[in-house]
Amino acid sequence: MLGRRLVALGSVLVLGIPAVGIPAAGAPALGSWNDTAPKSAIVAFVERVTKQGSTDFVPVPERIAVFDNDGTLWAEQPVYFQFAFMVDRVKALAPEHPEWKSREPFASLLKGDMKGVLAGGEKGLMELMAATHSGMTTEEFGRSVSDWIATAKNPKTGRRYIDMTYQPMRELLDYLRANGFKTFIVSGGGIEFMRPWAEKTYGIPPEQVVGSSGKLKFEMRDGKPVLIKLPEINLVDDKEGKPVGIQTHIGRRPITAFGNSDGDLQMLQWTAAGSGPRFCLIVHHTDAEREFAYDRQSHIGRLDQALDEAQERGWTVVDMKRDWKRVYSSD
Amino acid sequence: MLGRRLVALGSVLVLGIPAVGIPAAGAPALGSWNDTAPKSAIVAFVERVTKQGSTDFVPVPERIAVFDNDGTLWAEQPVYFQFAFMVDRVKALAPEHPEWKSREPFASLLKGDMKGVLAGGEKGLMELMAATHSGMTTEEFGRSVSDWIATAKNPKTGRRYIDMTYQPMRELLDYLRANGFKTFIVSGGGIEFMRPWAEKTYGIPPEQVVGSSGKLKFEMRDGKPVLIKLPEINLVDDKEGKPVGIQTHIGRRPITAFGNSDGDLQMLQWTAAGSGPRFCLIVHHTDAEREFAYDRQSHIGRLDQALDEAQERGWTVVDMKRDWKRVYSSD
Repeated sequence: MLGRRLVALGSVLVLGIPAVGIPAAGAPALGSWNDTAPKSAIVAFVERVTKQGSTDFVPVPERIAVFDNDGTLWAEQPVYFQFAFMVDRVKALAPEHPEWKSREPFASLLKGDMKGVLAGGEKGLMELMAATHSGMTTEEFGRSVSDWIATAKNPKTGRRYIDMTYQPMRELLDYLRANGFKTFIVSGGGIEFMRPWAEKTYGIPPEQVVGSSGKLKFEMRDGKPVLIKLPEINLVDDKEGKPVGIQTHIGRRPITAFGNSDGDLQMLQWTAAGSGPRFCLIVHHTDAEREFAYDRQSHIGRLDQALDEAQERGWTVVDMKRDWKRVYSSD
Repeated sequence: MLGRRLVALGSVLVLGIPAVGIPAAGAPALGSWNDTAPKSAIVAFVERVTKQGSTDFVPVPERIAVFDNDGTLWAEQPVYFQFAFMVDRVKALAPEHPEWKSREPFASLLKGDMKGVLAGGEKGLMELMAATHSGMTTEEFGRSVSDWIATAKNPKTGRRYIDMTYQPMRELLDYLRANGFKTFIVSGGGIEFMRPWAEKTYGIPPEQVVGSSGKLKFEMRDGKPVLIKLPEINLVDDKEGKPVGIQTHIGRRPITAFGNSDGDLQMLQWTAAGSGPRFCLIVHHTDAEREFAYDRQSHIGRLDQALDEAQERGWTVVDMKRDWKRVYSSD
């Protein structure tokens, strides 16, 4: 608290500008947002809860902000990026598994026949997940993610996946943190898939990443303790699982939540139902030119029920085409 | 970072004392510790990892410290305090459950016959846990804990349980935080049992409390979302479960760990096995006069294997009688 106040005080003294709403770094806040309704709504909310003495004031420890990842902080087309990681891992591991050439869904995947892969349904996908996301230590898995994310590229944009994070959302993370918020990811994506790069990319440390997880097993290998990733699900952090993930990992109800699909609906409902000021926002993918345009009919990131509920409840909806000056951090 | 540096700078300017090792509040660090080996070892470790430019320097985000709770941050005799809470809850709920009068282990508990309760073994205890720790919303459970902890007293000391936290350990938490450490509880106790009071008591917010947990279920009740505590185990955060809890909740290996029993052994091993400087400490209950004396033969907080391993590996062992000037925060 004292530290934060000194930073705020420093901004006033050195820069001669009011402390509230100004990122500590001195960069213009929310510079990639157009001056349309969502930006005003965000700023109004932050000013409302940070104003000392106001009835809506929220103490710093309670300023919890949760963000979905896929489609909210980075893109998710043409397939969830973790799916692309899984495909690349199967290819990389194939030389050690000659039997995969004649075993589905591996055989189809290795031939590049995605329809054949999907024909195996959920059972086939679980086999691919088990082969690529379990059976190794947590450290080995983390390294495979770090290596992949450093170079892998999206087939639609030719950009690295890591360069397809949304600049306006990264500025929003900075803006909230500069105002005393603690920012968390709450994603259906794998917790161990996001942690290796979330800190450098979003400024969100591993302990503030909530995601889907598998069970772990502690054991001694050659006298050294390791944690083995097991092929059993611990938490599916999606839909009804998101409030469960929030309570289990954070233990405190957020006062603001950001999502983009029906998978985020329960997280938004859970956030909105708390007492005191709340702010819920949905990113609507409306920009086919600069990014992708999809909503009610999409298989990836379907936004249907949550869009209706946003309208009924007055949640803020970002129209990417209208509201964002810039899309990707690499633009 | 900047905030912390300003606080440290402030200490130097205002108090004329070196910033490292000085709590932000300006109080003497570790004042309830005698000037014996454990205090020196703690201070030496902290100075080593916080010294800029040294090869052992650890950046602030990696300064993760984990603390067991029962027997490490507060007492655990004559029974774990959460057990006492459970007993009191059964008594409080009994009027709504007339059938308990003739059903074990409830009948024995209501008659005050603890031997009869324990005769039911693990199955009986699980029934008591289910009846008192599930079937309600997370908010209802949190209120029952807050109400209980405010007044409930330990039968041996006549003190409130909340007043049986260890003053030297609270100073240690403050000292580590003043030096850029993030402090976590990693306890076999219930995560939802500790969260309602850990922030006020230890300065540890809910999102930094790791503990045993049950499964949760999201549902709508009269149009309001709630999380129901189910009578199913999610994580037993003890022994091999502690490194699992650390990885799942924190996602980063601690550089220092504090425990008091064999239940903490794997957490200490996991911490010690990381690369770079590490500090592991065990609180040994040696003071029958001011607290309780127990170790290898105790049913509660047995310290046997971990005591041997501490000696082999050179971990610091606190002799409460010798090393602590003061025991309870309420002394």
